Amino acid sequence: MIGKLNHVAIAVPDLQAAAAQYENTLGATVRAPQDEPDHGVTVVFIDLPNTKIELLYPLGDDSPINGFLEKNPSGGIHHMCFEVEDIIAARDKLKSEGARVLGSGEPKIGAHGKPVLFLHPKDFNGCLIELEQV
Amino acid sequence: MIGKLNHVAIAVPDLQAAAAQYENTLGATVRAPQDEPDHGVTVVFIDLPNTKIELLYPLGDDSPINGFLEKNPSGGIHHMCFEVEDIIAARDKLKSEGARVLGSGEPKIGAHGKPVLFLHPKDFNGCLIELEQV
Repeated sequence: MIGKLNHVAIAVPDLQAAAAQYENTLGATVRAPQDEPDHGVTVVFIDLPNTKIELLYPLGDDSPINGFLEKNPSGGIHHMCFEVEDIIAARDKLKSEGARVLGSGEPKIGAHGKPVLFLHPKDFNGCLIELEQV
Repeated sequence: MIGKLNHVAIAVPDLQAAAAQYENTLGATVRAPQDEPDHGVTVVFIDLPNTKIELLYPLGDDSPINGFLEKNPSGGIHHMCFEVEDIIAARDKLKSEGARVLGSGEPKIGAHGKPVLFLHPKDFNGCLIELEQV
């Protein structure tokens, strides 16, 4: 069911410093910051040859990243995103096997303009998993 | 400098259950468990079309995964591994820019039989980064 790893998302306490570190110290290709008000984050995508890193920084007071950064002030790996062909079919299969979908359970439009869902970390070895329909 | 994302490693409290979940619930291609006594882990690699997931389970009493699982009993994302062409050149560049290399600072042979190093999470937004020479 799951296809490619679309990205690994890292919550960071200083977006500019983190982007500069990936660009200069680690020598990666870093895109311009992009505000995602519907998700409460500003993101910077880093293009690797086979996938992407997504740096996440809070946007707004009720950003879902605020709590994560309170618990992890240095930042940390926040989630990973797997591609699926049919997000509704994937959701229904996962729910039928007891996995919990976060929020309303209906896909939202993610940072790439495509439908996304998040799965409960407690059901997946403590990992927050995003599914993105491609 | 960094090339492909070689893998994302997930520490899990039950290796057999986690492998079965990736195989059956998430529909991925899961390889047989492999003991890595030099690293104190048993690993299961999951092949995605563009990268791999590495499930990690403690092997031995002084496994480096024991402490992580004590803090994160459900498991969690433990590290991510970037490929580099020349691990000594990469290490020396990173050290010259103030990044700390874990352990002796000399590469060890990793789960793929290739030289690896780990970078200090505090220097990289709370993320444990492995470099693997390919």
